[in-house]
Amino acid sequence: MQIIHTIQELRAWRKNAGTVAFVPTMGNLHEGHLALVREAKKRADNVVVSIFINRLQFGQGEDFDKYPRTLQQDADKLEAEGVAVIFAPDEKELYPNVEQRYNVEPPHLQNELCGKFRPGHFRGVATVVSKLFNIVAPDVACFGKKDYQQLAVIKGLTEDLNFDVEIVPVDTGRAEDGLALSSRNQYLSAAERAEAPRLYRELKAVAESLAQGGLDYAGLEKRAAQSLTEHGWTVDYVEIRHADTLEVARTGDRRLVILAAARLGATRLIDNVEIKLP
Amino acid sequence: MQIIHTIQELRAWRKNAGTVAFVPTMGNLHEGHLALVREAKKRADNVVVSIFINRLQFGQGEDFDKYPRTLQQDADKLEAEGVAVIFAPDEKELYPNVEQRYNVEPPHLQNELCGKFRPGHFRGVATVVSKLFNIVAPDVACFGKKDYQQLAVIKGLTEDLNFDVEIVPVDTGRAEDGLALSSRNQYLSAAERAEAPRLYRELKAVAESLAQGGLDYAGLEKRAAQSLTEHGWTVDYVEIRHADTLEVARTGDRRLVILAAARLGATRLIDNVEIKLP
Repeated sequence: MQIIHTIQELRAWRKNAGTVAFVPTMGNLHEGHLALVREAKKRADNVVVSIFINRLQFGQGEDFDKYPRTLQQDADKLEAEGVAVIFAPDEKELYPNVEQRYNVEPPHLQNELCGKFRPGHFRGVATVVSKLFNIVAPDVACFGKKDYQQLAVIKGLTEDLNFDVEIVPVDTGRAEDGLALSSRNQYLSAAERAEAPRLYRELKAVAESLAQGGLDYAGLEKRAAQSLTEHGWTVDYVEIRHADTLEVARTGDRRLVILAAARLGATRLIDNVEIKLP
Repeated sequence: MQIIHTIQELRAWRKNAGTVAFVPTMGNLHEGHLALVREAKKRADNVVVSIFINRLQFGQGEDFDKYPRTLQQDADKLEAEGVAVIFAPDEKELYPNVEQRYNVEPPHLQNELCGKFRPGHFRGVATVVSKLFNIVAPDVACFGKKDYQQLAVIKGLTEDLNFDVEIVPVDTGRAEDGLALSSRNQYLSAAERAEAPRLYRELKAVAESLAQGGLDYAGLEKRAAQSLTEHGWTVDYVEIRHADTLEVARTGDRRLVILAAARLGATRLIDNVEIKLP
């Protein structure tokens, strides 16, 4: 496995690398990331994992500076998975002009759901992923469904800007009690960690109600949010949306996703559950 | 020479095409375009010319609907130049969702100079060029200096979004009397055509004053605009800018460009002159 820090070296390697599957990350890797890598390995001659903490997608007051930098541990994990290349550019390599002048601007979806609470976040994601696609030139790229809205943005920009990349969504990895794997879980106290799986349980309960024919979407959203609030969560949103477009779900939509973001103490967790009605 | 209408066929051809130099156009080709093609031919195994009238870069009241569609004549000219492929997608092929949701958003420069008079124009240009780069995957792309601001936008997005494409600026083709070649010249009446070279003459006069040490930029701009106005032009702008950044020129800048846009009757002409001070 090679660790490559510059665009020039990555491109030189790429020329003779056959097909490439790509997993973009911000490092601090857990089993959820490794599931993406395993999926990537099935799909191409070589896997490239990028590790880059993208300042552009962090808002003011977010955790850019304290985001864990764990390159050596990450490299050990990725080597064990048979990854060919880690692309780990420094900030100057991706943003030599300090200011990113040209951005990939998502549609209004970027201001909804998580975007409402993280202004500019999805513009930052869309821009850095476009840059990385142009640098790595992958045939396939794997993204986790845990970041469902991010996945929708990436599918959208790939289609609209005609990137020649197949986007592969990968199911959310979960702990045994159902909690979605996330770098942020490490910030939870023991008590918070015990409480955390409630998020997924509430989303599954909404899905169950929908499967049984529940049509009062607003009521279901409200009840789930209330239950979380009663157990000490600060809820950003619980919403039922169309699974493909992420538009507000309407009666008659068959493919739905219930998405939520809520905070336990200082830690913001997100999760979602897809459901296909008969 | 092949005329290819779909992205899929273009990509299939691209796989075995060696190096590719790309000239994006909206068709209705004149000698200025052919100069781009000749430059392109020097730089790669194959030349691809796209012909696509991009609705996204036309404003309300602009000439999208009456823009000349002359594919057969264009194809004859390009075949004679030894072009390998014309890529001529229809609108649905490039904009299958009707609405382009994800756009490449240029910085504030998009609202200055021509952008001030054509809101959204440079966003449309940046977006379609990004799409075409992703479809054609060229090694090199040639753009005319006549559209100087467009060239700056394309250089900027290529750098900021890490497109692996070398941007080659090509000098403006001119008629014997100095008028910059443009599809729009065909709209000029005989009297307007006789008057039209004044635009270039005024820009050269400003350049001459700068070369002689003139430092009253605002005064020089104003005088050139006044002279045009006196001869029946409606002037959008005459501006002295930094030749690389297109920021407002400041005393001490050595590489300058004088840019202008002005209308003769209903026809809007643009031109520019670069100058390097000692």
